[in-house]
Amino acid sequence: MPSPPPDWVKALKPSEPQGSDLLAQERAQSNVDVEKLSEYLHTKPALERQKKMLSLLQPDKVFDKSQNHSLGRVERLKRSLAKAKRLQILAEQEKWSMEELHTANDLIGEPTPYGLHASMFLVTLREQSTPEQYKLFFERAQKYEIIGCYAQTELGHGSNVRGLETTATWDPEDKTFIINSPALTASKWWIGSLGRTANHAVVMAQLFVGGKNYGPHPFVVQIRDLETHQPLENVYVGDIGPKFGYNTMDNGFLLFNKLKIPHVNMLARFSCVDKETNKYVRPALPSLVYGTMTWVRSNIVLQAGGVLARGVTIAVRYTAVRRQFQDRDADPHSGETQVLNYKTVQIRLLPLLASMYALHFTGRGMMALYEANQSRMKAAATPGQSSRGAGPEELRAGAELLADLHATSCGLKALASTTAGEGLEVCRRACGGHGYSSYSGIGPFYSDYLPTLTWEGDNVMLSQQVARYLLKSARAVLSGKAADNDTSLILRKYLNRRDKGASFDILEEDADIVAAFAWRTAHQTFEALKHRDAEKRSWNSLLVDFWRLSTAHSQYLVVKNFYDAITSPAMTSSLDAETKTLMHSLFRLYALHTLEREAAEFFSSGAVTVRQITLTRTKAVMKLMDEIRPHAVRLVDAWAIPDWQLDSSLGRYDGKVYDDLFRRASQENPVNDLVFDPYPWNKAILKDESPKSKL
Amino acid sequence: MPSPPPDWVKALKPSEPQGSDLLAQERAQSNVDVEKLSEYLHTKPALERQKKMLSLLQPDKVFDKSQNHSLGRVERLKRSLAKAKRLQILAEQEKWSMEELHTANDLIGEPTPYGLHASMFLVTLREQSTPEQYKLFFERAQKYEIIGCYAQTELGHGSNVRGLETTATWDPEDKTFIINSPALTASKWWIGSLGRTANHAVVMAQLFVGGKNYGPHPFVVQIRDLETHQPLENVYVGDIGPKFGYNTMDNGFLLFNKLKIPHVNMLARFSCVDKETNKYVRPALPSLVYGTMTWVRSNIVLQAGGVLARGVTIAVRYTAVRRQFQDRDADPHSGETQVLNYKTVQIRLLPLLASMYALHFTGRGMMALYEANQSRMKAAATPGQSSRGAGPEELRAGAELLADLHATSCGLKALASTTAGEGLEVCRRACGGHGYSSYSGIGPFYSDYLPTLTWEGDNVMLSQQVARYLLKSARAVLSGKAADNDTSLILRKYLNRRDKGASFDILEEDADIVAAFAWRTAHQTFEALKHRDAEKRSWNSLLVDFWRLSTAHSQYLVVKNFYDAITSPAMTSSLDAETKTLMHSLFRLYALHTLEREAAEFFSSGAVTVRQITLTRTKAVMKLMDEIRPHAVRLVDAWAIPDWQLDSSLGRYDGKVYDDLFRRASQENPVNDLVFDPYPWNKAILKDESPKSKL
Repeated sequence: MPSPPPDWVKALKPSEPQGSDLLAQERAQSNVDVEKLSEYLHTKPALERQKKMLSLLQPDKVFDKSQNHSLGRVERLKRSLAKAKRLQILAEQEKWSMEELHTANDLIGEPTPYGLHASMFLVTLREQSTPEQYKLFFERAQKYEIIGCYAQTELGHGSNVRGLETTATWDPEDKTFIINSPALTASKWWIGSLGRTANHAVVMAQLFVGGKNYGPHPFVVQIRDLETHQPLENVYVGDIGPKFGYNTMDNGFLLFNKLKIPHVNMLARFSCVDKETNKYVRPALPSLVYGTMTWVRSNIVLQAGGVLARGVTIAVRYTAVRRQFQDRDADPHSGETQVLNYKTVQIRLLPLLASMYALHFTGRGMMALYEANQSRMKAAATPGQSSRGAGPEELRAGAELLADLHATSCGLKALASTTAGEGLEVCRRACGGHGYSSYSGIGPFYSDYLPTLTWEGDNVMLSQQVARYLLKSARAVLSGKAADNDTSLILRKYLNRRDKGASFDILEEDADIVAAFAWRTAHQTFEALKHRDAEKRSWNSLLVDFWRLSTAHSQYLVVKNFYDAITSPAMTSSLDAETKTLMHSLFRLYALHTLEREAAEFFSSGAVTVRQITLTRTKAVMKLMDEIRPHAVRLVDAWAIPDWQLDSSLGRYDGKVYDDLFRRASQENPVNDLVFDPYPWNKAILKDESPKSKL
Repeated sequence: MPSPPPDWVKALKPSEPQGSDLLAQERAQSNVDVEKLSEYLHTKPALERQKKMLSLLQPDKVFDKSQNHSLGRVERLKRSLAKAKRLQILAEQEKWSMEELHTANDLIGEPTPYGLHASMFLVTLREQSTPEQYKLFFERAQKYEIIGCYAQTELGHGSNVRGLETTATWDPEDKTFIINSPALTASKWWIGSLGRTANHAVVMAQLFVGGKNYGPHPFVVQIRDLETHQPLENVYVGDIGPKFGYNTMDNGFLLFNKLKIPHVNMLARFSCVDKETNKYVRPALPSLVYGTMTWVRSNIVLQAGGVLARGVTIAVRYTAVRRQFQDRDADPHSGETQVLNYKTVQIRLLPLLASMYALHFTGRGMMALYEANQSRMKAAATPGQSSRGAGPEELRAGAELLADLHATSCGLKALASTTAGEGLEVCRRACGGHGYSSYSGIGPFYSDYLPTLTWEGDNVMLSQQVARYLLKSARAVLSGKAADNDTSLILRKYLNRRDKGASFDILEEDADIVAAFAWRTAHQTFEALKHRDAEKRSWNSLLVDFWRLSTAHSQYLVVKNFYDAITSPAMTSSLDAETKTLMHSLFRLYALHTLEREAAEFFSSGAVTVRQITLTRTKAVMKLMDEIRPHAVRLVDAWAIPDWQLDSSLGRYDGKVYDDLFRRASQENPVNDLVFDPYPWNKAILKDESPKSKL
């Protein structure tokens, strides 16, 4: 590391006022009870868990973060595996719960090469194994005796699972499956933990039995030797190379040359090939995965709030410390203005502050709905219920709700991850020049987050699922066969009132804001239905409209969930009056700012008037920003993201932005060990390469 | 590097159809004369220069790009300096012109540690030196006997130059300047080429003479020893650490402890301290820098077209090769659809294709205007002209035009760099999962480009300059004292017609599209004027409106410049009919797509009706996309960006996307040299760390 600064440098401080004083002022001007709000958002046990894990991990050298942004990929990957191993050893020693392990992973703040083993590999083995397979694969995997990954995506095939090229052909002679990659595009690709780490993979392959293709099925395939870790014969496997982020993960490729695997390696809980008859046995419960994906997507919505909170925490604290220029109308002797006071900064950051709360409450709402329905369905399906009694009725209602949840989770996943991903970049830019430094903590986190916009359904692709569901619901409403749910309700309300027209008082009535968002969704749904069913327009020509429709519907859901949260008894009883007022302002800011940005749609749907939009923009949003501004720092403090997790000079809790940027640059930056020969005509560029010749 | 694939892998090809065949089909379905269009865009000499430089650089090992995305910062910086040195040696040997050196740098595709020496350091020395200083500093710098940088920005002070803290105090006793950093926030920061490379810096510091502050002035300061390259006493200098991009540049920090420098080191062409009288001598030509910044910004606009072209070239070619899912209405046996055929992909890529042309022609237009004006002013100012004749009159008109150009260049710089930066990310996401790979060529280029949105004026800050100019122009128009330029013209036209209202036929008449954009700008200008002058609203409360106004005005300028270009005799005589028709479609797509995205503003200004916007969205834009789609590949081919410059598996001219992704992952990826011990309980994680113990 570089030589320490001389004494005259050590004596320097940032010029006044100090960042720590500015943040102290910020915190003094608001009465938001940060602790209480934190507990309401995250629960007390979660906050205590975070504290405990932090005290365990932060002092441990193996988890040091200081070199993360300077190292090359080889070194980063090695260190990340070391972190993953250390976590696993700690987890065993300390008997961590799953929550504790998750919290630890969040605090580490990077994907590790064990990532896919610990998630998709274990989950798939647990859910899709027969009892025999459970013992053979799951139990060994859980003990890390075998390390695995989940190999679905191929070089030529991403979202379209039905297009996969890898084949698994049943050989009735020797009772094995032959796994084969018939083309280069069949190579498994992007598979996390596969590149260098896994010795097993769950491989999704087209099952052929008796010459017939039964579609993609999961197979457990050993790919590397358990002792030497070298690839097995007829397996070609490796890492796919550097990426925009996620470079601590060994995403891999995998090709097979007619590799034979035993019958027991086809995961057979839901469907299998009968060893005796050589016949395919159909799946028992096809809709199960449907539910899992809904859960995964709801989780992404909830996480999106937290992701955005990291960026907003950093940007709000930094722009409260950073001062630049004077307000043109201010007293010339008043010094530079806190950047957060500029309206052009507020209009970027405060709606995102509102969004992080909005997404958090929406995610919570989705999870609660999902879990309530799951347990209802589970209860209905348990033995003892009559097969023609209340059970099936409940199951049907549950299945309907699950279909609704599925569609809403698709749209919300797209909206939430886009909002969070793009919001992080807005936060980074709001930090001006220093936002570009890796020490800002935003850039690297943003790069690692971006895949969320593509995986578990590409955000643009997902919009089709939402549109399809809304069109179906609209047809059901028109034919009087609608399910009894909120989607049907808003469609019906719109139809009943369409002739009269909307007259929502969005500037005064919160419920009317929610209604205006519902109206816009319903209007766009029936427009799309007309194009498709009456005008017979092609599906492709409507994709852009569907995308808008999905966004509109998802924005409605966020506004509705946020509204439900602020009017819920839980919030009313948990928070003090000032905080509740602020939650209300955040709700209105989220809703009205969104409405204003999407003005053209609200407007052409007849939900609001031009005058209302002008007033929203020039008065209501400005007033809400004035109300929220003094509380901005406390409202991010309440998310309780530890400094070690933020890993940001700009977003430090204590506001010592400049000291920390300087400390890192001068003391943690390996580049400062280099001594260049700066002249073009010498060959030596480094002190260690050759003795310095005369200039 | 990893072991080569076995024969069975080498025998694999991508499944049919091959990418090369798909791109051949694309090129066959259009008659755009690519070569002619290339020459029209770039000129024949420029294309030949590119070819020549490419043949020199590409075979040279030192310029190898294959490891760029895998290496850590230390290694990247070393290699980048080696590239810069090699370029400099080649330039001397081969007697390259400035254009050739620029082309070479573009082809290399990364900032190098010589970057700021070769630009700002040399330019500042050349323009601001006295003849004595020219000899002493510029000539040695030009020969790379001294290596420099330009040190303006400080840790605590970015855009606000007047807030700089570094001081240069004139000492009348020993006739020196004392350069000092009074606080940590005074540390120079972000200074390119400073971290490890430069031994000199042009330092901007507050000049104090006789206790009075005369504001920031430039001083040449030696910072490192010319032989040992160690920092001089009372200088603390280093690299500021890793960044989101630009990691091949050693952006640095710099602190001074009362360092003495001789009188000759204050760059004194425009102002100086008189050695005898110890008095400050005022600057001769204060507006000179004004012109330079205008030139720099116009150049950013022109480059923005080329930057976007890289992303669009990659995305258009890749989405023509990539096939995914079937069109829902298509014959089930027709196979998967080219992704570029989906309207959700077209709506993202084709307007960007139009934008890259729009920005190119706008940049060209700006540069031409600037240069014409400069030579007119130079002619008017040359000796021999009467001091009271046509000269001063011309000078005044020139200064007025320069003021207009200054404002328009501020707004356009912001719009163009934002469009290009954000457009690259749109292109990356349109490439789906593979867009995330560094081998896509978009991510790394995007990261390196992002600072352009902040430097030479932060894009949001710049909008104030535009608004200030428009308000001033509006006041002049109202008082009958307006300058004779386009800005005054559109404001006057609006006033004359405001009562009657607009009735532009944007769907049929191109000139009406331009007029609608002008109308919206004028409307927003007079609205802002009313808020400021009549309602006396605070400057801060109007910043958001100013930002919108700046964007509106800049979009008008792009639309106008594009329209002027497609109706210019130059284009009419140079291109064939089919290409001209396409240029016209691109103009309309850029304009109408922009209009539709900004519908609410067009609308509330009364420039268009709701019906027009609905038709624009649902009919006009869709029709234009259908017209342009078959020519998309040829329209990107015409930008003639060499594969070596693109450095993209996805954007290859030959369409061999999958072969190249696979080749790079398996053959150029150093991660595949690692052999992990995958189990948590062994300490060894690498074959070279310890002999493998039993599992």
